[in-house]
Amino acid sequence: MNEQHILSAFDRDLESAQALVMRMGGMVEAAISEAAKALETRDEELAEKVRLGDRAIDALEEKINEEAVRLIALRAPAATDLRTVLTVMKIAASLERVGDYAKNLAKRAHVLGQMATIPGAGGALRRMSMAVVQMLSDALDAYNTRDAALAEDVRNRDRDVDQMYNALFREFLTHMMEDPRNISACMHLHFIAKNIERMGDHATSIAEQVIYLVTGQMPEEARPKAESVMTAGLETED
Amino acid sequence: MNEQHILSAFDRDLESAQALVMRMGGMVEAAISEAAKALETRDEELAEKVRLGDRAIDALEEKINEEAVRLIALRAPAATDLRTVLTVMKIAASLERVGDYAKNLAKRAHVLGQMATIPGAGGALRRMSMAVVQMLSDALDAYNTRDAALAEDVRNRDRDVDQMYNALFREFLTHMMEDPRNISACMHLHFIAKNIERMGDHATSIAEQVIYLVTGQMPEEARPKAESVMTAGLETED
Repeated sequence: MNEQHILSAFDRDLESAQALVMRMGGMVEAAISEAAKALETRDEELAEKVRLGDRAIDALEEKINEEAVRLIALRAPAATDLRTVLTVMKIAASLERVGDYAKNLAKRAHVLGQMATIPGAGGALRRMSMAVVQMLSDALDAYNTRDAALAEDVRNRDRDVDQMYNALFREFLTHMMEDPRNISACMHLHFIAKNIERMGDHATSIAEQVIYLVTGQMPEEARPKAESVMTAGLETED
Repeated sequence: MNEQHILSAFDRDLESAQALVMRMGGMVEAAISEAAKALETRDEELAEKVRLGDRAIDALEEKINEEAVRLIALRAPAATDLRTVLTVMKIAASLERVGDYAKNLAKRAHVLGQMATIPGAGGALRRMSMAVVQMLSDALDAYNTRDAALAEDVRNRDRDVDQMYNALFREFLTHMMEDPRNISACMHLHFIAKNIERMGDHATSIAEQVIYLVTGQMPEEARPKAESVMTAGLETED
């Protein structure tokens, strides 16, 4: 297919779509950090900001999809270019889901304010969030620079996040066993931990998209890894 | 763009992709039913079948994506046709996620076997699963027949599933408060209920894709509805 003569025009269009993805990534990273901060400091105003901000993130995904579709329809890109466009759409879809999880974190700031305090939980959840923000930021850098090694590194760090989650799960379980008055708070804290762990899964799937884009195939142990985490801590869901 | 002369060839390709989606849908519906049955009857053999069967579902999504990409590259479909192809890919992605949830349900059959029995939970979860299977099957029918009214009906039924989930959440909470020995079992049962509720969300997003395909715009109260569920029962996540 006559890839040559459309290449430059295609690249221009692709760049503008990629720029939107990077902007979306920045907004999502900010949303996670702010949601975690709002939870730890029980700052309902900040939580509200994150909740409202999710609309802008969703709108950006819509815009990216429109750009991508326009690009495909207009340039009819050949195999490799087409895969790149589809990757952009998949990354935007992952970012949108992470944004939803950040919104849901923020939504719990208010409820938690009315419940028993579980010592150290806020800090642990913030540290877990920061690890996910770093994974996300590196996954997007890996996309920008087509760096499969960095993407692989992001995948490996997902194990750490899973372990942080499993440790928290057991901690919450203990608090519930010790005092039934902790049950409601721990159920909500547990949801928060689970959502953060899921954000890590999405950062990982962005990294896997990058590896697919660069190497032409999805990373080998993608599913096996999920399995092993599952058997290690049955509370995880992959 | 010269849509006419490619229409028949495009339609042939599209039909084969759509046939794969329908087959994938059938496999996912069976996986949900069997996973729910395995949980209720604690049938580990059936659970194992569901777990292994997920690979075939994932492979089918890959095949559908390849077909769709080939179709776009080969036929360079114009706006409307392109939207249809993208809808096929989005539906396949939703089905793949529902398949993962079914696999995760099946994975819990074994753990639950070693825990305190919560009377009535198995039956309630199966009823909830059956409601989701019906939503999924109707959402796919709505796609096949481009029936926006049926798709709208599926969206409305998601509220029932959310209510079933909220009721179960409160029931599990009570069991945990009453007897700490129920906590572990209830945490797992609660995950199962949450996963089934999420399957309903995916069936709903398939229905919303159909409405978008038929009417040209996403249903109005899509996000507001999610909000209202959130405030009604804070345990829900999106």
